[in-house]
Amino acid sequence: MNEMMLGRINHIAIVVPDLDGAAAQWQARTGAEVSAPQSLPEHGVRVVFVVAENGKIELLEPLDDSSPIAAFLARNPDGGMHHICFDVDDLYASRDRLIDSGARILGSHEPKIGAHGKPVLFIHPKDMTGTLVELQQA
Amino acid sequence: MNEMMLGRINHIAIVVPDLDGAAAQWQARTGAEVSAPQSLPEHGVRVVFVVAENGKIELLEPLDDSSPIAAFLARNPDGGMHHICFDVDDLYASRDRLIDSGARILGSHEPKIGAHGKPVLFIHPKDMTGTLVELQQA
Repeated sequence: MNEMMLGRINHIAIVVPDLDGAAAQWQARTGAEVSAPQSLPEHGVRVVFVVAENGKIELLEPLDDSSPIAAFLARNPDGGMHHICFDVDDLYASRDRLIDSGARILGSHEPKIGAHGKPVLFIHPKDMTGTLVELQQA
Repeated sequence: MNEMMLGRINHIAIVVPDLDGAAAQWQARTGAEVSAPQSLPEHGVRVVFVVAENGKIELLEPLDDSSPIAAFLARNPDGGMHHICFDVDDLYASRDRLIDSGARILGSHEPKIGAHGKPVLFIHPKDMTGTLVELQQA
């Protein structure tokens, strides 16, 4: 087993009530490159990436009320930080290490294809200091 | 003015109710290097760093009830993501750009020395998509 499963910080996701406004705000305030919005119906979100030197900020807006992030936005109407995503070299080994350490994996224990086209899984925030952590196969 | 003020993601800060337990949890679950705890009385926090390949996770615990993070922990008793810190090449130019774009800077507009011994300032979360953003002189 790889002792060090934590690779790069891939992105930090922020849920926002108005994606176009949020993208314009980040662009104006930071001067960073901001990608064109993409709709990802299979994830229930519309997304824009703000590009920093060593990682990305992912701005997310729910596509509709059935979106997995709709409840978060209802609790945080101004928006807020939603999750951190780390790259890992071996997603299955990381998953097994987490389960062995007592952490719960959200949903089924099988990785799904995430917003970047790579396998991902999420750790239960109550088992990771109140923070939703996504792991993505590097 | 530097058009691109956003440099590296320096760290993501997570406030936790029990720093030693949180540090042990991150170490056990991710295998990452975790620093020894440091108390920073001038910031009212005790801190540990979890080292990822390209940045850090900063775990923060209030030193006492007068800590700037005590209210956050009262609202989020399990802990949660508190802020993102970016490096910037020119903190004063970044501050002026932010103010010109309509963003509020927390406290006085003069940078203070942050937890890493470098000048920092914070953008009001309501002016940055609900997210507390720290800028640190690189």
